[in-house]
Amino acid sequence: MKRKSIILFTALVVSVLSCSDSVEKDYKDASLSIDERVESLLPKLSLEEKVAQMRIFHANIGAKPDENGNLKLSDKVIEKLKLGIAGIKNPGEHIDPLAAAKLNNELQKYIIENNRWGIPALFVTESYNGVDAEGCTRFGRPMTSAASFNPELVQRQWDVVGREARLRGMHMCHSPEADIVRDPRFGRMSEAFGEDTYLTTQMVKNAIIGVQGNYEGLGNRTHIGAVAKHFAGYGQVLGGSNFAAVEISERTLIDEIYPPFEAAVKEARSLGIMASHGDLNGVASHGNPELLTGVLRDQWGFEGYVVSDSNDIARLYYFMGVAESPEAAAQMGLEAGIDIDLYAEDSYSYLPEMVKKNPELEKLIDRSVRRVLRTKFILGLFDNPYIDIEETKKGVRAESSLELAKESDLESIILLKNENNALPLSKDKSTKIALLGPLLSDDTKAMFESVSGSNIKYVAEKGFNLTNEKGGAPKLLEKDPKAIANMVNMARGADVTILFLGGDKFTAKEAYFSNSTKGDRATIDPVGPQDELVEKIKALGKPVIVVLKHRRTLSINTIAKEADAILDTWDLSEFGDESTAKIIFGEVSPSGKSPVTIPRSIGQLPFHYSMKEINYKKEYLFLEDGPIYPFGHGLSYGDFKYSDISISSGEITPETELEVSVKVTNEGSMKAKEVVQLYIKDEIGSVTRPDKELKGFEKIELDAGESKTVIFTITPKMLEFTGISMEKVLEAGDYTVKIGTSSQEYLETTFKLKK
Amino acid sequence: MKRKSIILFTALVVSVLSCSDSVEKDYKDASLSIDERVESLLPKLSLEEKVAQMRIFHANIGAKPDENGNLKLSDKVIEKLKLGIAGIKNPGEHIDPLAAAKLNNELQKYIIENNRWGIPALFVTESYNGVDAEGCTRFGRPMTSAASFNPELVQRQWDVVGREARLRGMHMCHSPEADIVRDPRFGRMSEAFGEDTYLTTQMVKNAIIGVQGNYEGLGNRTHIGAVAKHFAGYGQVLGGSNFAAVEISERTLIDEIYPPFEAAVKEARSLGIMASHGDLNGVASHGNPELLTGVLRDQWGFEGYVVSDSNDIARLYYFMGVAESPEAAAQMGLEAGIDIDLYAEDSYSYLPEMVKKNPELEKLIDRSVRRVLRTKFILGLFDNPYIDIEETKKGVRAESSLELAKESDLESIILLKNENNALPLSKDKSTKIALLGPLLSDDTKAMFESVSGSNIKYVAEKGFNLTNEKGGAPKLLEKDPKAIANMVNMARGADVTILFLGGDKFTAKEAYFSNSTKGDRATIDPVGPQDELVEKIKALGKPVIVVLKHRRTLSINTIAKEADAILDTWDLSEFGDESTAKIIFGEVSPSGKSPVTIPRSIGQLPFHYSMKEINYKKEYLFLEDGPIYPFGHGLSYGDFKYSDISISSGEITPETELEVSVKVTNEGSMKAKEVVQLYIKDEIGSVTRPDKELKGFEKIELDAGESKTVIFTITPKMLEFTGISMEKVLEAGDYTVKIGTSSQEYLETTFKLKK
Repeated sequence: MKRKSIILFTALVVSVLSCSDSVEKDYKDASLSIDERVESLLPKLSLEEKVAQMRIFHANIGAKPDENGNLKLSDKVIEKLKLGIAGIKNPGEHIDPLAAAKLNNELQKYIIENNRWGIPALFVTESYNGVDAEGCTRFGRPMTSAASFNPELVQRQWDVVGREARLRGMHMCHSPEADIVRDPRFGRMSEAFGEDTYLTTQMVKNAIIGVQGNYEGLGNRTHIGAVAKHFAGYGQVLGGSNFAAVEISERTLIDEIYPPFEAAVKEARSLGIMASHGDLNGVASHGNPELLTGVLRDQWGFEGYVVSDSNDIARLYYFMGVAESPEAAAQMGLEAGIDIDLYAEDSYSYLPEMVKKNPELEKLIDRSVRRVLRTKFILGLFDNPYIDIEETKKGVRAESSLELAKESDLESIILLKNENNALPLSKDKSTKIALLGPLLSDDTKAMFESVSGSNIKYVAEKGFNLTNEKGGAPKLLEKDPKAIANMVNMARGADVTILFLGGDKFTAKEAYFSNSTKGDRATIDPVGPQDELVEKIKALGKPVIVVLKHRRTLSINTIAKEADAILDTWDLSEFGDESTAKIIFGEVSPSGKSPVTIPRSIGQLPFHYSMKEINYKKEYLFLEDGPIYPFGHGLSYGDFKYSDISISSGEITPETELEVSVKVTNEGSMKAKEVVQLYIKDEIGSVTRPDKELKGFEKIELDAGESKTVIFTITPKMLEFTGISMEKVLEAGDYTVKIGTSSQEYLETTFKLKK
Repeated sequence: MKRKSIILFTALVVSVLSCSDSVEKDYKDASLSIDERVESLLPKLSLEEKVAQMRIFHANIGAKPDENGNLKLSDKVIEKLKLGIAGIKNPGEHIDPLAAAKLNNELQKYIIENNRWGIPALFVTESYNGVDAEGCTRFGRPMTSAASFNPELVQRQWDVVGREARLRGMHMCHSPEADIVRDPRFGRMSEAFGEDTYLTTQMVKNAIIGVQGNYEGLGNRTHIGAVAKHFAGYGQVLGGSNFAAVEISERTLIDEIYPPFEAAVKEARSLGIMASHGDLNGVASHGNPELLTGVLRDQWGFEGYVVSDSNDIARLYYFMGVAESPEAAAQMGLEAGIDIDLYAEDSYSYLPEMVKKNPELEKLIDRSVRRVLRTKFILGLFDNPYIDIEETKKGVRAESSLELAKESDLESIILLKNENNALPLSKDKSTKIALLGPLLSDDTKAMFESVSGSNIKYVAEKGFNLTNEKGGAPKLLEKDPKAIANMVNMARGADVTILFLGGDKFTAKEAYFSNSTKGDRATIDPVGPQDELVEKIKALGKPVIVVLKHRRTLSINTIAKEADAILDTWDLSEFGDESTAKIIFGEVSPSGKSPVTIPRSIGQLPFHYSMKEINYKKEYLFLEDGPIYPFGHGLSYGDFKYSDISISSGEITPETELEVSVKVTNEGSMKAKEVVQLYIKDEIGSVTRPDKELKGFEKIELDAGESKTVIFTITPKMLEFTGISMEKVLEAGDYTVKIGTSSQEYLETTFKLKK
């Protein structure tokens, strides 16, 4: 109630000011402040025009190019645009960047010229691995980027994304995902940055800074605005089942789920936030004012807009069972603080009628419209809404962007296993290599040839597919013994086999409700006869290299046992196989680290390295203990030795800091990068504490024989957590610092916090 | 602080009253009230004597019979008993009831005569399936009892338990489990009453009323006191891993986890409560005053004592990491409201020293000692601490008790599947039956012969074991193809095969920390070649009946596909195979219903029938939807038709009630019992609501052709839940009533709640 009154008061003041001015301020005047421009424009809008600024529709309902590439609007869209619109999702997504830029200029012009106040629209895309549209640079997925443990690299990737999107005429992206993903049953896990709060926070922050460019310079129209999603707890859906309920303690929410969002708001200044499907401990996220207004705005000072996920305001009624009618759902979303209704035809569209019965609602509508208009001013859309096509020609898929995609790949590939230095392979020896397996691409062989040169001869055979999509529903394929026998024969004739295993695009994806859009799985075993394939080829007694491509964590028990070397590549850029070949032939040492724990079985879940210590103390029957590979694990062609851990003092106070250093030496014969990881364990807390928590990392490069001392600063802030009274506390007592090459291999030292 | 002050005040008043009396009241005077007796005794005790009343040790540390059956006390125990003791766990557990009664009389006499004030000790046992001691009636486990859906039967069972325990000289039992168990990875799941809150509440309430007899008459020494455990959330340990952390919302705690405990306290008046291992959203349960004092005492009015779980106060320090020293752990437990320290040598033993530094602690010690002494007075121990051995001779394993165990079995066996009426088998036809499989007992064949008579001939072969315990650690056994071939041959020579499958005692049990005491599992697939066995025997083309014996839910996909009939028996009484034979030969129709959802895969978890509706709306890839068998499912030899559902009004108000009736007809040719189940679904709530919730059930018996109209009263109380503001609410709107034979098969009607 308090909040509403204040808003009302502000509106009145502004309105009085406007009247008392002899000349009305003009929102078109770029010399005015953004707030002045917003307050100049808002009162002019009719209620219907205001509500139009709270809705986004998808271009596929009728704002598309015709067969000649000219804009063609459906009657429905023409009707909508008369009132203006908050935004349009994915206009021109299926045409090349230049055509898209032209089309979007045309579309924007139409919009501006056909609503009374000339308000431009936000053109919105998604961009988790590059702009989600034809002809843009395709990077690795966020999980792949996370494996680089290189936030600076992520920032450069997302800088390219922001630029390419703007050059297509886009203004906002519904990315990045700031969710913590710890359940590999969840089909979308590769769209986020892994299981760890600290790593995700670094990546999300840098992604937003990258995609938005210089926040203050967003009006220069080189970048776009970010929408961090899904607020909050989306990765924690029960059973890894999209749209399911979330059951989580307030303490875990605050300490483990919120930080990437808090950094997105406070440090990276994300222009938008998207709410989460489902609920949070019973409260529907789209109807949760404590979350969307209390935490986001009152606590963190968020000033941008909150957009619903697709149709999710209407879903409060027809799916979530928390609203008694579509109108009640619309009111719930509005009151909670959802400023924009994404897609629904039957939700915020009811607001004008509802205001007739309940005039108070218009204040909340004004609150939301202000946020949307403000965003459009920030993005410079009123001042120059169009793209310079010449820039588009130069800027999209620039050579430097493609090189960056390759560079990112090389830093993201994780060497999980390398028995007897099976990798790298030599380009100098005449070798015959069999490239086999269901994840082989059409151009894998060509890419390998381009990297390895003429000494290496290849045979290549995909052998079998994992799934097909008969009748819309993906199905596992029956095993074809002949295909396997054929591949084994090919391997027999080769010196080395490289197996491409993992999961195809049907085995992990965003899940909806129909049979054909399933995407979550109840197990994480590799599907099909992949284990059999690796066993039979290993039985030939020759080296077997496995390249894993996948979009969810897989319990690769058999592969981990049989393969001589395993490269975990998740889902690399469009140049993925080329990058993999470069790693295989030792052009570059792998330096990726696993951003997730790789469990032996879905039955070990929940299983992330930072679980409560008490969760770790007991083993299951009939199952080897621990993960297959731990969080932070990744080998190198270098040979890194950690030594001389040292701490500047045995004591820290709330006013002081500590430095912990470790010497890292590359005792190998090849230049290589290594991610030095800092974990802290609070030995005793007022509440049960994590086994350890990542609190820092640094990626360094060392020549053969080179040493470097890596220094981490430990600040009191890093030791804070939500204590027994639900307030952030700094607790006196013993802490252990662990610095090493993974969450399970490290040197230790200790200090005390005194108060 | 307020609470402590009040207690202090009470103590002073009482003390003043004592002083002002000319003659001091004597706690030995049975004509005084219990409170007067407690307040008379307490001030006499030294600090050390008080703390002794807060500790229980296990008899195995030195209070055992010698080779002649006479009491033999170790020096350690003699030393302890000089101060008195709260209680001793399991004295005489390994000797027969008569010998135990004599021994315990002797032990009690020693205790009374060797502490200054003659304070008797509580002798404590466990009793989830009968008194956990030699020579008592062995009933089915709680999960088995739950399957009966017959609380009255459970009350009669626990009445026997209470009587037999008292006749051995016991006074308290650390039972029943009031935990909700929804994760079959948890090794202890069969010690509780299943996944459902309502069913568990009925069973726990009746178990306590049974074991305590008439609460007001506990001083008559015919029964014992109950200790409901583990408060709270123990069944919710993450990963089903004993001792792990618990992550749960406050709303779920209140609505789904607390009710059995609340009923134990408020309705059944349990004398004791045991705290839970592990934590609750970060707060260690043994150091949680909001839980152990706030909820338990301030909200529910609990007046008994709270006992720790084994060593768990000390574990606050050495396991949970929430106390900085054993002394800090002791203080945390004391302040939280743990009155008795179970077993720890290094926890409450420090209290006398601690009081020297912090005299305030003695008030909390007094608070706890009052509760313990009060319990001893309630149980009549000061007035007559001994057992009448003549009663023991008559009372333990009375014929009626053994008959009750059999009766309970017959009501608890669940007929999961009965294709083409494979069951019952006829006793009249000359049939040859093969009794095969790893869960066959030594006396199975004899029990079957005793039931079926001479027409039926048997061959019996266990074939293989599932596990062994080599070197302490249970291991799965290698498949023995000869054993399987041999069993297939035996089945080939028989007309019908009855397979005894499931899990042995090593595959599900309470898990500790050493390799030899693992008990939780990461999968719920049946272990060993059980699936292969059922497939090969089914391939013979003859009827296959599967009898399941197990202590955790198993994903019996193959068994469910192959078997003609499945009897799910969980873990029956000592007469289990006889009862199973009676069901198989149709002496009685099965009438058990599954107290848990039977999932297809551990990957479907969490999966209980009352999940949020939104959790149900989407399926996993490559997995058939739904459970193998739903909660509440169980077939019959009768043939029950539900019809004529009718509701007394379409509307309920907070002040009115409704009646819903349904007609149930046994269209079969055999008398049978059926559990008529009432579920309610709240269609729209302020928070996301369960898909449906069990709110009533009635077990009826119908002759062939007989009909009965079953009437349920729907009260507003049944519609309450914790609403969006965390208060219990009754929300206007639409409700659906479902009455049927399982959670998935029912008739429906609707009503509206108007306010």
